[in-house]
Amino acid sequence: MGLRRHVYHQLFARADRSDKLTLFNRFMIVVILAAVAVTIVATEPKIFRPHRELFIALEMTFGLIFGVEYVGRIWSVAEEAGDEPAWKARLRFMVTPLALIDLIVVVAALMPFFFSDVALLRIVRLIRLAALAKFGRFSAALRELVRALAERRYELLVTMALAACLLLFGASSLYWAERHVQPDAFGSIPRALWWAIITLTTVGYGDASPITPLGKFLASIVALSGIGLVAMPTGIMASAFSDAMQRQRGAEEDKQTDT
Amino acid sequence: MGLRRHVYHQLFARADRSDKLTLFNRFMIVVILAAVAVTIVATEPKIFRPHRELFIALEMTFGLIFGVEYVGRIWSVAEEAGDEPAWKARLRFMVTPLALIDLIVVVAALMPFFFSDVALLRIVRLIRLAALAKFGRFSAALRELVRALAERRYELLVTMALAACLLLFGASSLYWAERHVQPDAFGSIPRALWWAIITLTTVGYGDASPITPLGKFLASIVALSGIGLVAMPTGIMASAFSDAMQRQRGAEEDKQTDT
Amino acid sequence: MGLRRHVYHQLFARADRSDKLTLFNRFMIVVILAAVAVTIVATEPKIFRPHRELFIALEMTFGLIFGVEYVGRIWSVAEEAGDEPAWKARLRFMVTPLALIDLIVVVAALMPFFFSDVALLRIVRLIRLAALAKFGRFSAALRELVRALAERRYELLVTMALAACLLLFGASSLYWAERHVQPDAFGSIPRALWWAIITLTTVGYGDASPITPLGKFLASIVALSGIGLVAMPTGIMASAFSDAMQRQRGAEEDKQTDT
Amino acid sequence: MGLRRHVYHQLFARADRSDKLTLFNRFMIVVILAAVAVTIVATEPKIFRPHRELFIALEMTFGLIFGVEYVGRIWSVAEEAGDEPAWKARLRFMVTPLALIDLIVVVAALMPFFFSDVALLRIVRLIRLAALAKFGRFSAALRELVRALAERRYELLVTMALAACLLLFGASSLYWAERHVQPDAFGSIPRALWWAIITLTTVGYGDASPITPLGKFLASIVALSGIGLVAMPTGIMASAFSDAMQRQRGAEEDKQTDT
Repeated sequence: MGLRRHVYHQLFARADRSDKLTLFNRFMIVVILAAVAVTIVATEPKIFRPHRELFIALEMTFGLIFGVEYVGRIWSVAEEAGDEPAWKARLRFMVTPLALIDLIVVVAALMPFFFSDVALLRIVRLIRLAALAKFGRFSAALRELVRALAERRYELLVTMALAACLLLFGASSLYWAERHVQPDAFGSIPRALWWAIITLTTVGYGDASPITPLGKFLASIVALSGIGLVAMPTGIMASAFSDAMQRQRGAEEDKQTDT
Repeated sequence: MGLRRHVYHQLFARADRSDKLTLFNRFMIVVILAAVAVTIVATEPKIFRPHRELFIALEMTFGLIFGVEYVGRIWSVAEEAGDEPAWKARLRFMVTPLALIDLIVVVAALMPFFFSDVALLRIVRLIRLAALAKFGRFSAALRELVRALAERRYELLVTMALAACLLLFGASSLYWAERHVQPDAFGSIPRALWWAIITLTTVGYGDASPITPLGKFLASIVALSGIGLVAMPTGIMASAFSDAMQRQRGAEEDKQTDT
Repeated sequence: MGLRRHVYHQLFARADRSDKLTLFNRFMIVVILAAVAVTIVATEPKIFRPHRELFIALEMTFGLIFGVEYVGRIWSVAEEAGDEPAWKARLRFMVTPLALIDLIVVVAALMPFFFSDVALLRIVRLIRLAALAKFGRFSAALRELVRALAERRYELLVTMALAACLLLFGASSLYWAERHVQPDAFGSIPRALWWAIITLTTVGYGDASPITPLGKFLASIVALSGIGLVAMPTGIMASAFSDAMQRQRGAEEDKQTDT
Repeated sequence: MGLRRHVYHQLFARADRSDKLTLFNRFMIVVILAAVAVTIVATEPKIFRPHRELFIALEMTFGLIFGVEYVGRIWSVAEEAGDEPAWKARLRFMVTPLALIDLIVVVAALMPFFFSDVALLRIVRLIRLAALAKFGRFSAALRELVRALAERRYELLVTMALAACLLLFGASSLYWAERHVQPDAFGSIPRALWWAIITLTTVGYGDASPITPLGKFLASIVALSGIGLVAMPTGIMASAFSDAMQRQRGAEEDKQTDT
């Protein structure tokens, strides 16, 4: 009983309450980041092929760690049970989204590497990153961000609608101007939308760009007028997030002053 | 008489007054977005050709819905007539810009698909999007945006003039430096302006870029000094809009507090 | 005498005092913009060659108008003389920078088009744009902009120094990583600086980009860390300018309230 | 003794205390900038080869000046000694980071040019720029910048983590969509990360861009949603820096008002 309580505290102690991560939590963050890094690197054939065995061993190790953690959580979550039977608390925990992600990750991690051509299976392991959302302050920050976005959803919606109209207007203009000259790049509005998005986000690969004087003239107008508009939703998001962060800091400082 | 009043309320009830869209308004928003999406997708030959009949049927359906809505508006707008004869209120409504757009859209939508090579006719249907401006909160936001821009028109004019001077200065420099080396891209100031616009908006397709050391040196100076200037009008627009939105929200909250 | 005074008021009445441009000032703004537009378009051989005579006629007309204006200014500026002889006021006016620009513009405009291959001569005519700085509100805005920049010259200097260090650091890294693989693009630090400037301003033409894994890794770090830094001076400029504009507007509103 | 004190004041007088650079400090700033410029230009074979002797002579001169300054600092720093023996103060000074950089620079500068193919050795000389950090106001500004960043480290960490997730998500999507079509550019997640970084920083070289409709669709979503996120850390940095600068200016103005 003493052991289960100890394990429970190590695995579940929410950092947003105590503002501290347990030793085990710190270890798991390192393991998750390492597992994700290994998954990323393993997709590169030039690195994977000569070290096939190493990667399989690493994957197995990470899978084992995640498996042990998962089992440990299910076992120790019974501490939350109170008067009800332990299996009820366990079942309640198992159907939470983060626990389901944990399960998928464990299954994916332990899946043998022999089916390695099923590349998608490997990518599934990247959702391990979602496991990081469990950890206190980071999850508090995400909640703050979502709240800040919800608060300005109206501005976001209006600016996004305007940006969408501009993208559509730009794509239609260039479709009209260049559809016969460059049918591959501007032969339909969906194709021209690719140009519009890559231009108005200022990425500008150069795989689609107007070549006629009329097309260049229209593209210039669209580019000059549009860049601000397309950047507006992200600017609103950034300022909302920044405000939310400052409010949170202010609140934390007030708390500290009160104490 | 009771039916006409009911239809009038469904079609015209302005959401900015009651803060609610009628059921029919919600339905029309969905129809408009669907019609625009269909028009966009229909320009892609690879999708349009194999499903020609489907697209014609969809277009006809949308055209019918818009036609019925248009007739319904003209019929029910007589509710606004008061003492004057009904046809006066109808005529007054028919010459408003949004009603004219509605008429064009209905005509364009019902135009048979057989003249489908007249691609421009199809694009006309995209102005259906303008019909969205009818709907309450969105139209209020647009008015707010126009007002915010009008308020800072002076800053906008000055920064736009400076940006125009810089674009011209950049284009002239590169014209001077590279006109003999790359006559296609820099053989005249209008050609060099294309380079200047694509560079200073940071799009950078790469279809026109200096190749001589002198041209690269001048382009570096223009790029480093100019990017801030060209981004200034859009920055002013974004902050004006953001301020206006916050003012509006503040006003709404005041209203709610008063009630 | 009455005529000279009238001409003087039409030509010199400073709009920043009376907040109104005289009829002649408005006419001159249109002429300057038209003359600049003609000069720009005339550099395009495809447009210039078939309409050679038209462009020569237009240039001559603009030259004449600027010449008449210049003579008119010198003649009527004697109104400012007071007790001293008229030629003293005229000479004082003739050596002001804007009057000298006017002189150059007149000489360049009247220069026959026969030497049309001396393309640089034509560009000289673009400094006509500087003549716009004479006009009241615009020149006030420029003074305000210069003052706002001077006020934050310290921030600007620090951020520019940091941006310069980053550009140099980025160029050195890529020079070190790719100088043997791509000697044309990265064979020396000045060459790599072209890459660094085009990358960190996010223009990204694609004429110089790393191809080795090491080069791509270094370029990623430089791009992710550097973009904010290179954008900082322009951000400071924009906010300085925006503040200055708001102060000016506040001052103007105070003035109006006082009256 | 009088000379050593004089030299000490010329070499060490910290500008952040007296707000003034000594004559010698100004001279050294010019020398450092010139030495760095010469080092940069010397990497360009087209300029270096024909003027080999000139560059060697310049390097030697700069090396001598830095050597004399270094010796002068070590000699005169004894002024700080107080009661302890002079060599203790000298040793304490010699192990400070900036003094070590000075030493490396002197050694690198005096290293003969004959080993000129050891290009890395030349780049070492660029750390001379670090010597600029010695000079008063600039070093104060850097401290302020570091402090401002430390203050918002939490926001920075969260936005950087989100940006990293988005980069990874974008890279995985495109890896999934285009790995068989363009194995060179998207054949592994590390390769696709290069695309994601160059796209989401809006650089957009065009050396890696999706070509399938699915790839373009995913890239559009990633580009539209991601640009704001990747720009957020740099936006937070810029605003933190701007605030810090204004605080500092406010403090300085208060100081001046008090006096």
